[in-house]
Amino acid sequence: MAGAEWESLEQCLEKHLPSQDLREVKRVLYGKETRKLDLPSKAFEVASEGNFELQGYAFEAANEQLRRPQIVRVGLVQNRTPLPADAPVAEQVSALHRRIEAIAEVAAMCGVNIICFQEAWTMPFAFCTREKLPWTEFAESAEDGPTTRFCQKSTYYMEGNLGHPVFQTQFGRIAVNICYGRHHPLNWLMYSINGAEIVFNPSATIGILSESLWPIEARNAAIANHCFTCAINRVGQEHFPNEFTSGDGKKAHHDFGYFYGSSYVAAPDGSRTPGLSRSQDGLLVAELNLNLCQQMSDVWNFKMTGRYEMYARELAEAVKPNYVPTIVKE
Amino acid sequence: MAGAEWESLEQCLEKHLPSQDLREVKRVLYGKETRKLDLPSKAFEVASEGNFELQGYAFEAANEQLRRPQIVRVGLVQNRTPLPADAPVAEQVSALHRRIEAIAEVAAMCGVNIICFQEAWTMPFAFCTREKLPWTEFAESAEDGPTTRFCQKSTYYMEGNLGHPVFQTQFGRIAVNICYGRHHPLNWLMYSINGAEIVFNPSATIGILSESLWPIEARNAAIANHCFTCAINRVGQEHFPNEFTSGDGKKAHHDFGYFYGSSYVAAPDGSRTPGLSRSQDGLLVAELNLNLCQQMSDVWNFKMTGRYEMYARELAEAVKPNYVPTIVKE
Repeated sequence: MAGAEWESLEQCLEKHLPSQDLREVKRVLYGKETRKLDLPSKAFEVASEGNFELQGYAFEAANEQLRRPQIVRVGLVQNRTPLPADAPVAEQVSALHRRIEAIAEVAAMCGVNIICFQEAWTMPFAFCTREKLPWTEFAESAEDGPTTRFCQKSTYYMEGNLGHPVFQTQFGRIAVNICYGRHHPLNWLMYSINGAEIVFNPSATIGILSESLWPIEARNAAIANHCFTCAINRVGQEHFPNEFTSGDGKKAHHDFGYFYGSSYVAAPDGSRTPGLSRSQDGLLVAELNLNLCQQMSDVWNFKMTGRYEMYARELAEAVKPNYVPTIVKE
Repeated sequence: MAGAEWESLEQCLEKHLPSQDLREVKRVLYGKETRKLDLPSKAFEVASEGNFELQGYAFEAANEQLRRPQIVRVGLVQNRTPLPADAPVAEQVSALHRRIEAIAEVAAMCGVNIICFQEAWTMPFAFCTREKLPWTEFAESAEDGPTTRFCQKSTYYMEGNLGHPVFQTQFGRIAVNICYGRHHPLNWLMYSINGAEIVFNPSATIGILSESLWPIEARNAAIANHCFTCAINRVGQEHFPNEFTSGDGKKAHHDFGYFYGSSYVAAPDGSRTPGLSRSQDGLLVAELNLNLCQQMSDVWNFKMTGRYEMYARELAEAVKPNYVPTIVKE
């Protein structure tokens, strides 16, 4: 198991593969090549001074006669917690706000319309400790808490809710599938059935648990549902003052493991951007042409060929306590 | 778009990457390393003489106190059509039988318990031509046709049916999700809910259409459903006597494109075997410990956390003609 020092898959491949092989490897791994976005040089300067990565890509769609291209720029932010977890709560929150503000300003320079941060971005990922104080003090009102007020200045952020609601915004229909929700293909499906064109998946997950699942799940959801998906993970290792166990029989520890970043965007045609770094803060800007959703739906027709009536019936049966699975015996 | 001459992702990575980077790349791409199976040297000799690839891997699970390991060996076969598509039908079928016989004998040497061939393995993939004769002449009785009689000598093969039946065999509970069925996450789910431990996906698909989707879909299904999945694709290019179009606005052609092979097995822990070649006939032997299904289910609990009742209700609503999607407007 590599530590966080192994920077990224893409960096490794680019360093070692001859250009023609690199092209084939990328094609097999990532599908149709995404065009590099021509972002302002000032944005790169500020990102570099601020010590975070900046990458930008565009997904293209065919021109249509009756619809204009529906271009939206999304920004995915991954970041470490700037202060240690035993610093005063208010200082941690304030440092996070300042960090996010710096990144959001670069996102604005890059023309980002919708920005999405990592899961539980206003605090260390303290759920793993199963402790209450001081972590509950990070809770805020979603209506008028300091983070909501902070976000109202510069940015756009919306949280999930019960069921699978989709939010109609001026930049397209979006949905938020939070963290663990990505493991259930039916969550993505229901967002898609409700019309989502972009589904964000803010996550917090560590290498030993899920790194080989990470490139698969959100990308499969984009393919299966003819929509864009944005998978965002934390970076860094968060040290907690009290030791805690992880229910895996191993010794108590002060950190949950390293969050491996690798945030990416996947498109309905199966293509995807490279991932951000495994260890550095970063902003990934992706320009989406939402027309690609309908175009891929026209190619594959999954919504037409999905036997949803049958699934609904089968699932309704399957959840009954007396359900007998359909098993044919020899 | 590379032709079939680019042999495989794994071969390319192994050729160019230093060993430590190779290990990290494989970990990120394929998850926990699969152990190489120690197959009989005689099997490799016969495969080499017969001009097909042979690879073998084992997926391991933790030892349990109350259950023995449930070890099953599956064989995935990918092959070209040995004769041109305008040869007499009976000769084509007979050549395919001989080819499969040679590969199945090596599978038997390797202790394979369940073998699965590619989709429509007894004929060229003539569906793309949308012609009737002579292709309908390849149809046989599934009860007592020559292929069924041939298979009864040496091998095991079972086809899908309506619904999502699972077959209880002495080697575990298996299901068959044919070709396009892999695009629907709910097909895999329903097989899994009916108890499948191994789901085979015999396919026939070409590079330009689906190569970047191929490593994602069956593997996501293994992860999401705590089961093994076996993705099998044809290899080679099949030339048809009459030209036909593909409904994509392009000129008529005599072949559908090249089938890119790359058959693989994915495990419930997110790991997978390397793929077979993109262009050569091949046999992939994978040793599965079916206990891994329950073990991964205990780790992730997707069956417990899946809100199937809610999905069943939402889907039942969604298929109604007057369904109003849950869209929150600004």
